[in-house]
Formats: sequence, C-alpha cells, structure tokens
Amino acid sequence: MATTSTLDTLNIALPAKLPLDSGQELENVCIAYQTYGELNADRSNAILVCHALTGDQHLASPHPITGKPGWWQRIVGPGLPLDTDKFHIICSNVIGSCMGSTGPASLAPDGKPYGMRFPVITIRDMVRAQIAMLDVMGIERLHGVVGGSMGGMQALSLSANFPERAARIMVIASTARHSAQNIAYHEVGRQAIMADPAWQGGDYYGSGQTPDKGLAVARMAAHITYLSEAGLTEKFGRRLQNRPNGEKGEKSFGFDADFQVESYLRYQGLSFTDRFDANSYLYITRATDYFDLAEEHGGRLADAFTDTKSRFCVVSFDTDWLYPTAESRNIVHALNASSAPVSFVELSAPYGHDSFLLNVPALDRVIKGFLEG
Amino acid sequence: MATTSTLDTLNIALPAKLPLDSGQELENVCIAYQTYGELNADRSNAILVCHALTGDQHLASPHPITGKPGWWQRIVGPGLPLDTDKFHIICSNVIGSCMGSTGPASLAPDGKPYGMRFPVITIRDMVRAQIAMLDVMGIERLHGVVGGSMGGMQALSLSANFPERAARIMVIASTARHSAQNIAYHEVGRQAIMADPAWQGGDYYGSGQTPDKGLAVARMAAHITYLSEAGLTEKFGRRLQNRPNGEKGEKSFGFDADFQVESYLRYQGLSFTDRFDANSYLYITRATDYFDLAEEHGGRLADAFTDTKSRFCVVSFDTDWLYPTAESRNIVHALNASSAPVSFVELSAPYGHDSFLLNVPALDRVIKGFLEG
Repeated sequence: MATTSTLDTLNIALPAKLPLDSGQELENVCIAYQTYGELNADRSNAILVCHALTGDQHLASPHPITGKPGWWQRIVGPGLPLDTDKFHIICSNVIGSCMGSTGPASLAPDGKPYGMRFPVITIRDMVRAQIAMLDVMGIERLHGVVGGSMGGMQALSLSANFPERAARIMVIASTARHSAQNIAYHEVGRQAIMADPAWQGGDYYGSGQTPDKGLAVARMAAHITYLSEAGLTEKFGRRLQNRPNGEKGEKSFGFDADFQVESYLRYQGLSFTDRFDANSYLYITRATDYFDLAEEHGGRLADAFTDTKSRFCVVSFDTDWLYPTAESRNIVHALNASSAPVSFVELSAPYGHDSFLLNVPALDRVIKGFLEG
Repeated sequence: MATTSTLDTLNIALPAKLPLDSGQELENVCIAYQTYGELNADRSNAILVCHALTGDQHLASPHPITGKPGWWQRIVGPGLPLDTDKFHIICSNVIGSCMGSTGPASLAPDGKPYGMRFPVITIRDMVRAQIAMLDVMGIERLHGVVGGSMGGMQALSLSANFPERAARIMVIASTARHSAQNIAYHEVGRQAIMADPAWQGGDYYGSGQTPDKGLAVARMAAHITYLSEAGLTEKFGRRLQNRPNGEKGEKSFGFDADFQVESYLRYQGLSFTDRFDANSYLYITRATDYFDLAEEHGGRLADAFTDTKSRFCVVSFDTDWLYPTAESRNIVHALNASSAPVSFVELSAPYGHDSFLLNVPALDRVIKGFLEG
C-alpha cells in the first residue's frame, strides 16, 4: 500500500487517473486519510466516515493546524458509537479540499499550483476518489458508510453509484439535492471570496496575500445557517460584549462588535482562514450546489437506489433549517419506493444544523445501534 | 415652510439641531420627502409612511436613479388603500440614508463628507427627525403612521416616544427588537463592506472608488433573508441559466452563474450599488440592530405603550422568517397588557418578508380598513 505520513496524516497515491463528471481526468491524485481501530483479517469491519464541507480526515485526532480535538472525537473509541474495538474507522479528506488530498492548492502536472485550473468536481467525484482509495486498501465491501451534511451526500452518492460497496448507509442532517436557498447562501460566500482583491483570480499561492477577508465573510454567512434561531437567541440574545478593560458591555455607538453575536461571528470567520483554503471553499461549495441525486438518475430519486443491497438509516434534526427534516423524508420516501430497508428518525436538538457535530446523546445511540445491528 | 425641490424630491431644513441617542447632536439636518394627496384645512388627514432599510421617500413616484415606479405605487392613489382623495400621504427619507436626507455622504460642518464621522443613529433618532419635519409642516397629530419592516420599527418608536402625535399606528412585518440572528446577518453585510479595500475606512467619496463589491455581497446575503425558502424554490428551484448565445442551460463546470438563483442574486447585489451608499448601509443596519423598544422602557415592552392614545394594527406574514409572526405577537401581547386597542392578523403569502412590498390583496384590504376605520 503506497502510504506515506506527512502533515500528521496518512496518504495514498491513487494508481490511476481519476475520471470526473466534468469529463476531465485528474492525475496523480493523493488522498489524505486517518484510521482508528484495526482492520480485521477478512477486511470486513471497515466503516468509512465522510466529512462535511469544511471538515477533514482528523475525525478523532488533533487537528494539525488548530490543535483542537478531532471533529467527532466524542464518539470514536472503544465502546463508543464508532467503536474502535469492533471497527476499522476510515476518514479521508475529500478531493478539492486542503488537508492533504489533491485540491486547487496542489501542484498541477506543470509544477505550479492548480488554482482555478483545478477541475470543478462533484460529490460523485469525491466518492470515486474514496472508492479508489478503498481499492488500494483492499477493502471490497464496507461494514458501513456514515456522513453528516455533505458527508451524508457522499454516503448517498456511494450507495447509488457503488451499491455493492457498503452494507450500511447512514445519512445525517443531509439532503438528496441542494435547494435554491442552499445554492444562494453558497453563492454569497463565493462572491465574497472572489470580490477580495487578494484572491487574484485564484492565483494567490506564494503571493504573500490570501483572500482572508473574503473567506471570513463567506464563513460568517454560512455559519449563521448552521445554527438555529432559537439557539442563537439562547446563546447570545442581544447581550453586549464586555470591553477588554473589563467595563460592562454598553453600546459603543460605533462599529465595533458591540453584541456578543457579532464578536462570535467575527471570530468564526477569522479563525476559519487559519485552517482553510479559499479556493477549496469555492470548489467544495460548487460540488454541493451541483448535487442532485435524482437528476443523476433520470429525475426520479427512487431510481438512485434500484440496485441497492444496503440497509439505510436517515437522521434529521428538528431545528435544522439548512437541510430540514422534509429533505430527509424525501430520501426516505425514495428508499421506501425502491423497497430498501430504512429506518428514519427526526431528533430533537436545539443546535440547528450543527447538531450532528454536537453533544446529542440520542444521535450517539442511533449511530451505535445502526452500525452494530 | 423651508422647502426646496432638488433631486426630484422635496426638502425641509430642520430649524434646530437634532439631539441623538448617542448624546451627540446633528446640525443642519435636511429631510427629503414626498407627498401625495392634499393636506386638509385643519391638517388632520396626514399619514406618515415610514420606509424600510434600503427604501426611500419615493413611495409612489418614479425613483430618480432607477426610474422604477415607487416602492408602494400599487397602493397609493384615489380610492386605493393609501387613498389620495382622502389623505395627505407623507414619506420622508430617514436620516443616515442617501436619498437626500442628511447621512454619511452629506457634508459635515467642515465642508467635507461625514463618512464614518457621521454619528451612529438609532430608530428613535430617525423618528425624532420625522417629528421635527412634521413640526415644520405644522402637523400636530397624524391620522396615522404606517410602516413595514424597519418602517414598522419607526411606527412603534413614534408611538412610544411621541404618543400624542398619531391616532393610528400600523406595524407590518416588523419586530420590537432585533434578534441575535437579525444582528448576525447585518454584521455579515457590514463586514463585507468594510472588507472591501475600496471602502477606505468610509472616506471613499470623491476618490473615484466605491465599495461596490462589498456592498453587493452585503445585499446578496440580506436579500436571501427577505424571501421564503418555498418562494425561492418556486421561483428558481435548481433551474439552470440559459446561456447568452441561446443555448439551453447546462452546468458549466465552472464558476459562472449556472443556476438562475445565482444570476438573480448577483443582479440584486450589483443593481443595489447603483442606488445605495455603502456607508448608509452600515449606519442604517446599525440602527436596526440597536433597536429594542423594551430596553428603552426599563425592559418591559408594555411600558413603551403606557401613554398611548392610538389604535394599533399589527400584521405579519406566515412565510416571513426574518421577523416571524412570533415577533408580532410579542408586540400585540405588550399592547394588550397596556390596554391599547389593537387588531392583529397573520396573513398567508408565499413571498417571505418581502410580502409587505408585493401584491398581497389581503394586506391592501387590512391597510384600507384600518386607515379608514
């Protein structure tokens, strides 16, 4: 297995060119990944976890840039929902991203960074790369695939396009297609990045300038959609910031961050630029906007699951207004129509879309039950 | 009456300095306004219409820059809900704006544009300026005040702070305080503007550069909140743009506006910059974020209406997620608690927050009935 360890991660160089939905091919593709728990002798206990838009392979290991715990650290380990005593958990960075897998910051065959010469990719392309990785690993059939948000799109796409490759498909807080509103928010983010002169048409690598301001605005706009209105109200309401000198918060009658929610959002925007590449944000948001599983199957979602041999579990959250429960029901109806075994639950959690990343014990139980059932 | 006609509008120079909530005073304040219908002999038939965030005084007359019909043209005229046979309709541009009333683009006493030296204003400050305008006009008591969105905030503030000045208060698609989510969206817009190097700390007047890119992104982000998810889906769904050469829409596998909703949003952002000043956007969003009518009255909203002599009408729309019906109910409960006569209706309309500006016949009937009752 052609693996190397750089940047605190494992890497696989794909042996062949990767065909893309655009008709192009991607050469010299590298997939960065992490694993947790041992692969058993017959290679039958592997679970692929697919990460969300700005996630990465550091599922349960410290992030190499921020030093923060893995994004699903809470549920990975012996006896935990992603049980490392039983399963070999694999999480790989999607192509187009910036944590080691080939993306717009990678070097093109001409030795210069791709920038906007990187081909536009789709969710299915991301999945093709993961299947190619599994081929290198010698894993024929996964015990399961689990993904939240964009990770759920990958799980759906894998089940539709590679129906033999996974026994269990778990789709959390996700959708089978991006809505007009979803596309609209992403377009705001892309325009914010491309409006930043430091973006330089995407050729900012090595220029000493990166479009951090535009990327921060994109993140701020998107971040609002990850939270519930009620959650924001409970967390911040209209509470004012205390001043650095310890003064109790008062309106400044200026444009400083008076409200705690302003300060929080600014921090979210700013800190994001430390760990994420603006071009990757463009490409990955584009991939999710292009996602429409029914369209790929003649316009009828049920036809995406005709050949499925998997069991499904679909989970939504009652406060998620980015991918509301209706989107999950849409998936469940299509699975029912194609006679696929599916369990569905709408969980109650106050955190909006981000619930899938946060401490929701009911979700932990659903994950454990589904993967061990 | 010190009125002049410039820029296709009427102007009043306020005779005294305007005291502001910040503790500052604003000198040489000019109020730009329009009127429709005759003022009667005892000056008792005047209705003040308060405009929304990016609205203006051109209620029912062509916009001097865009040439488009007035923003409420549809309902102003003989026999219409704002009946010019019966009423003298006044609509004035709020201070801080950019259509003739004093704002950040106006000249400060030193002869240079204020820019960010313009004082931060509040909704109450806007109302103070309107009351000063009415004083110049010799209008003691309005037949009514009508406002949608930020206009509704002004109507509420007028009733709380100048309870003798209006017989009827009509609040449409509005709120008594900006929520954390409302503030968050505005903060994204402000950061988008201030991230644009052309903003130049607000001193862009006369520089030949204006922060159009930042302002366009701000408008795009805000515009999404004005529409309903269902409305966006119905209007655009995932339909693709036809290409300029007439080719049927296909995915470009690039970053052009493939989806109609992208193209629509880009147009909304771009066209906004033709008619609006970025600094005004900063100041007016700040004013709405600061708005909390209960806070101004010891934390109890009902106390804002203790001295009211007015009748109230509150209208919300079922698809408005910017200022949802719950916010209107909050106002109605406070009015009930202070024994003020109030009628309340939640109207069904598919357009989200923007319903108050669009063709909703039920709204027309409610307006006409309330103002003539």
